[in-house]
Amino acid sequence: MPTIFLARKDVREMLNMREILEAVEQAFRNHAMGKADMPPKAYLSLEQGDLRAMPAAVSGAAGMKWVNSHPQNPSRGLPTVMAVLIVNDPATGYPLAVMDATDLTAYRTGATAAIAAKYLARENSRTLGIVGAGKQAYTQLMAHAELFDLKLVKVFDLSAVATQKFIQSFPKFNIQATSLEDTVAVDILCTLTPAREPVVEREWVKPGTHINAVGADGPGKQELDPLILEEAMVVVDNMEQAVNGGEINVPLKKRLYSTDQVYAILDEVVVGKKPGRKDAKAITVFDSTGLAIEDIAVARLVYEKAKALGKYLTMDFVEE
Amino acid sequence: MPTIFLARKDVREMLNMREILEAVEQAFRNHAMGKADMPPKAYLSLEQGDLRAMPAAVSGAAGMKWVNSHPQNPSRGLPTVMAVLIVNDPATGYPLAVMDATDLTAYRTGATAAIAAKYLARENSRTLGIVGAGKQAYTQLMAHAELFDLKLVKVFDLSAVATQKFIQSFPKFNIQATSLEDTVAVDILCTLTPAREPVVEREWVKPGTHINAVGADGPGKQELDPLILEEAMVVVDNMEQAVNGGEINVPLKKRLYSTDQVYAILDEVVVGKKPGRKDAKAITVFDSTGLAIEDIAVARLVYEKAKALGKYLTMDFVEE
Repeated sequence: MPTIFLARKDVREMLNMREILEAVEQAFRNHAMGKADMPPKAYLSLEQGDLRAMPAAVSGAAGMKWVNSHPQNPSRGLPTVMAVLIVNDPATGYPLAVMDATDLTAYRTGATAAIAAKYLARENSRTLGIVGAGKQAYTQLMAHAELFDLKLVKVFDLSAVATQKFIQSFPKFNIQATSLEDTVAVDILCTLTPAREPVVEREWVKPGTHINAVGADGPGKQELDPLILEEAMVVVDNMEQAVNGGEINVPLKKRLYSTDQVYAILDEVVVGKKPGRKDAKAITVFDSTGLAIEDIAVARLVYEKAKALGKYLTMDFVEE
Repeated sequence: MPTIFLARKDVREMLNMREILEAVEQAFRNHAMGKADMPPKAYLSLEQGDLRAMPAAVSGAAGMKWVNSHPQNPSRGLPTVMAVLIVNDPATGYPLAVMDATDLTAYRTGATAAIAAKYLARENSRTLGIVGAGKQAYTQLMAHAELFDLKLVKVFDLSAVATQKFIQSFPKFNIQATSLEDTVAVDILCTLTPAREPVVEREWVKPGTHINAVGADGPGKQELDPLILEEAMVVVDNMEQAVNGGEINVPLKKRLYSTDQVYAILDEVVVGKKPGRKDAKAITVFDSTGLAIEDIAVARLVYEKAKALGKYLTMDFVEE
């Protein structure tokens, strides 16, 4: 029984946003019903960055993503974040596949935000705002376009080059480069920046807006005026991770926000344990930190595809 | 910069016990001096087994071993334990190598016990006892033979087939199949069984014996009469792991032993912070549970060799 090895280019050609949306939503349903497991991450601190192990089991697959973060990498011509993911057979532990998980991570993050918007944004949402036109912008647009009939996409980035590259990458969409304040005036807003100070002001946010706060993924990071959280219906992907490094982490530390104010965990909303949007005028916020169950659910999909295609590198890896 | 992929057979041909003894002892020295790091393992429980992530950083390498334990696997023709290890460049997080770590684990476990014996056994030790002639017996003999001039090796296993196979595998050694009680009457004893009840009785252990208690690696497992621990100078590889599942775990739960009675952590003995054997008549026990720093130290060695040999499979794995 050989192990399949999938490099970044191999994985990329198998990623399909529609399928990923289904797999990730199913993983949240499973988790809400106790059929998926996600133990705490293991962190390894290094002088110039860190590495973390993100293990999870979902229906039909177990595995682990091993991902670094080295902020000085771009100056050496390397990406800040690189991820290797191992998929195991839960019944035997056999390593079925080893794959690059860089693009997979971007896709699952976009998919999860769009799933949150499905339950928290207004049903007739037609405008999408993108603050930060880096890599994550692409999969956010792809994911939301699958679930919403987007008439207009607004984009803001400090880099005009990044903004233009993003616009040109999606010729079929009506995308406009707008000011930061104007970008916020949309039905669904995605904040995708590495900010450590709020970039979205309270008065810019119109009633009825849903915000996917995706950028904050570590202690000290934040993108939203804490007043927004104060007023909004806030849903987190995972309480422990959100407290540690999600959008709520800085307001919590400054005692401007309390975990009692969090409305729900995303999986509770997905299975209907807690209702989604109730009021067309409410502001809703999804605090995304990224979960291992999302990774393993998508990796299972990629593994099944790769096995069916039968054209990728395989090796008797653990055999005697 | 490609990633190197090393299957089990590739790794096996690069494992050299003398080099591994040096690498593992250096890792313990580094750890004692705060130059190696080993965060807690992440455990993923599954219906029929478990998976665990064992991350560590040693001088020059970071990485993680992802290893399963599925006790029912042999009935399906699969090993109980299979391990995949990723070696990263600590400066950038780049995944330098992905390798099978099954044999590597057996070698580092043997090496660590022999290093413990170097400091805790009598210098003129000439006889080695092996209780349990499974896979671990082979690397225990190889490792101790590098550091001691072994005149006689005694072996006991419930399976005569396993015993004979072990003896025939080392034609250059004077190995005798002996009774359990007689096997214990040696200078250095290695217990390598999956026992959950003591198999070594107090009255069999002669003054001056060093015991490597290697079998207990999970809650409920034990190999030694608790009276042995009571009287012995006990050294553990890691206090947290030993308390959780090492030789001391059952006596601790039964309140027959206390962590205050543990003499030292192995790295303290290796760097001389605590002296090793002081008394020729003392009984010493090394409680081995297996550390991630041992794995990563050996994996670094294997990676460096593989890179120099240049003949193994490489792939642009995380590249765009």
